[in-house]
Amino acid sequence: MPAIPRIRLATAQVGIKYPGRTDLMLAVFEPAAHVAGVFTGSRCAAAPVDWCRSILGAGKAAALVVNSGNANAFTGMKGRAAARATAEAAAQAVGCRPEAVFLASTGVIGEPLDPAPFTAHLAEMAGRAAPGGFLDATKAIMTTDTFAKMATRSARIGGRTVTINGIAKGSGMIAPDMATMLAFIFTDAGIAPQPLQRALAKAVRGSFNAITVDGDTSTSDTVLLFATGAAAARGAPEITEPGGRALRDFQGALEDLCRDLAQQIVKDGEGASKFVAINVTGAISAASAKKIAFSVANSPLVKTALAGEDANWGRVVMAIGKAGEPADRDRISIHFGPHRVAFEGERDAEYSENDVSAYMKGGEITIGIDLGLKRGKATVWTCDLTRRYIAINADYRS
Amino acid sequence: MPAIPRIRLATAQVGIKYPGRTDLMLAVFEPAAHVAGVFTGSRCAAAPVDWCRSILGAGKAAALVVNSGNANAFTGMKGRAAARATAEAAAQAVGCRPEAVFLASTGVIGEPLDPAPFTAHLAEMAGRAAPGGFLDATKAIMTTDTFAKMATRSARIGGRTVTINGIAKGSGMIAPDMATMLAFIFTDAGIAPQPLQRALAKAVRGSFNAITVDGDTSTSDTVLLFATGAAAARGAPEITEPGGRALRDFQGALEDLCRDLAQQIVKDGEGASKFVAINVTGAISAASAKKIAFSVANSPLVKTALAGEDANWGRVVMAIGKAGEPADRDRISIHFGPHRVAFEGERDAEYSENDVSAYMKGGEITIGIDLGLKRGKATVWTCDLTRRYIAINADYRS
Repeated sequence: MPAIPRIRLATAQVGIKYPGRTDLMLAVFEPAAHVAGVFTGSRCAAAPVDWCRSILGAGKAAALVVNSGNANAFTGMKGRAAARATAEAAAQAVGCRPEAVFLASTGVIGEPLDPAPFTAHLAEMAGRAAPGGFLDATKAIMTTDTFAKMATRSARIGGRTVTINGIAKGSGMIAPDMATMLAFIFTDAGIAPQPLQRALAKAVRGSFNAITVDGDTSTSDTVLLFATGAAAARGAPEITEPGGRALRDFQGALEDLCRDLAQQIVKDGEGASKFVAINVTGAISAASAKKIAFSVANSPLVKTALAGEDANWGRVVMAIGKAGEPADRDRISIHFGPHRVAFEGERDAEYSENDVSAYMKGGEITIGIDLGLKRGKATVWTCDLTRRYIAINADYRS
Repeated sequence: MPAIPRIRLATAQVGIKYPGRTDLMLAVFEPAAHVAGVFTGSRCAAAPVDWCRSILGAGKAAALVVNSGNANAFTGMKGRAAARATAEAAAQAVGCRPEAVFLASTGVIGEPLDPAPFTAHLAEMAGRAAPGGFLDATKAIMTTDTFAKMATRSARIGGRTVTINGIAKGSGMIAPDMATMLAFIFTDAGIAPQPLQRALAKAVRGSFNAITVDGDTSTSDTVLLFATGAAAARGAPEITEPGGRALRDFQGALEDLCRDLAQQIVKDGEGASKFVAINVTGAISAASAKKIAFSVANSPLVKTALAGEDANWGRVVMAIGKAGEPADRDRISIHFGPHRVAFEGERDAEYSENDVSAYMKGGEITIGIDLGLKRGKATVWTCDLTRRYIAINADYRS
């Protein structure tokens, strides 16, 4: 991943939970970058999420501090104090106000997070933070992730090329409104906070908010987008208004990058053996299509059938039915990949069980659902539900 | 289970799917009984559900035919024809109109059901149907069930004792609005269709609609309550108006019986190793409490933690947060059995990890959640999510 001017990164081993690996990362923005953010839909958000929400309005970020191993969630007064103490330590280290320090924490919920060790580390890290180093930063924010999730794109603004780098973590508790999913996106484009927020919100809809591993939504989900504006030095214009034509190419690249990161998260779904796309068409609206797609993607019976490589379209019908959205049983058709297995409310007499069975053994499965009503459509990505998911999650805390 | 006058039962081996076991049951009501019914909330209901809904208005049942092995769901025109043919065969066999024959089917979805073999069997079964035989009837409707689910109660109406017998099947795909769950309840009480329907709907709310195994809702869920009125011979009055005092004792007994059957279903949840009650109090309303209880009960992360005997209350908080209902993180308290593990938004400093761990090893777990807002409360029953659930469901169809 290319370095992005005005962004310096550093990581450290603080020993929060995991021994022998990095678990703290610091990003320094000098001068302060514009920032946009989207957060968990949980009614019990973690302390760092509350902190970020409270400072996002100013639209400026001088630093980002992320730790893994402890989510600082459901930690009450202590959690708020730990978040503030961390922001103050980082502010001291990089020379800014605490309200310009963004925070995210991921890991165990409900254990108090002791911020004391951060103070010394952050001061030292600010000193050695350097351009580049995105892979190390990604590694420091991993929890049960089995690989580092990164993506980069370039886009043209006003005839000049800008860069967008994204890093993410997350492999369980992934669901709409995000889930234990953190993603940090960095660009040298110059975009004011308002259009930046608009661009991010739109990109999240069809990416981070269109994936699910287990339907569980974390208290800590955070996506932050930082725009340094360094590209101005190469003549790229500063974008100050939302929705203009000048941002079109950037918007496309940002959406593509977000989708890439989101799909990486699903591919690393806890215990996942298959990457699954659910394409719903013919719904009465896009929102209705998305709800049906999630109902299928989250169904334990559908997910276990996928793990068993069983083209069990009956369970797909069940999951469509329970979504509570308009559907006419006798107009539904269902494909597994290129194979149409159900048509107009009953089994497609033409399909070959052997061909479909062979398809189900692949690592990437597409389930196509046409409701035959109107033109609403949506795609959601998920994975199968395996014995390994149970093994990973039955003894995560202990 | 005691016999109930005016009800005769018979079962047969038809070889629909399972070899060497009964898979068809016939109940004959002579004279016709009053009947009430509650069905799946699925938008893609099975053909027998559509059939029952279409004839329920008349409030009279002369026969009930239930098969296991094939759900006759998502079978299009063929499914409707199979349902009608079955009703006609039973009508011929017992001497009634097809519209007085109630139907239910459970088993594989999406495979056409051939009703041809039913005709001969039903004629023969009607001839030998006899009082009693509830255990055999229960066995004939089982699918992945590992034990027969039955309950009986007595109640007083107008100073006379009446009997209520219930049989049920179901172990996977159990969720609100029922799931592949069939329950048939029989009483000798004399209750007109309207008060009968009212009594059943109320009883279902806190029983069959308060359980979940995997959050998946079947296309076939059916609860039917048949009242023969035979108790009139012993002087029990006929109840013709809903909501009167005369039905109070009956209502209590019916609710108790439904809760018993519902809990048996959860205890037989696919792969379940623990029976779990989720008690939510302090919500803004009963509906809000129930939604939160279901969010916890359906969370794969909570359920796998239970399987791992891990008192992971952080995941309980996560599941409360994702329910989308009013909750104030800093007022929530959580108990595992008698042990308070979280209080006012953070870990209860007093609790002993050893004591809680010992409690989690038990076969019956209660999770208490107090939201500290208002007086809304609800209880939902569920089970844990184990490797065995995956094993059972990854290769059910094949």
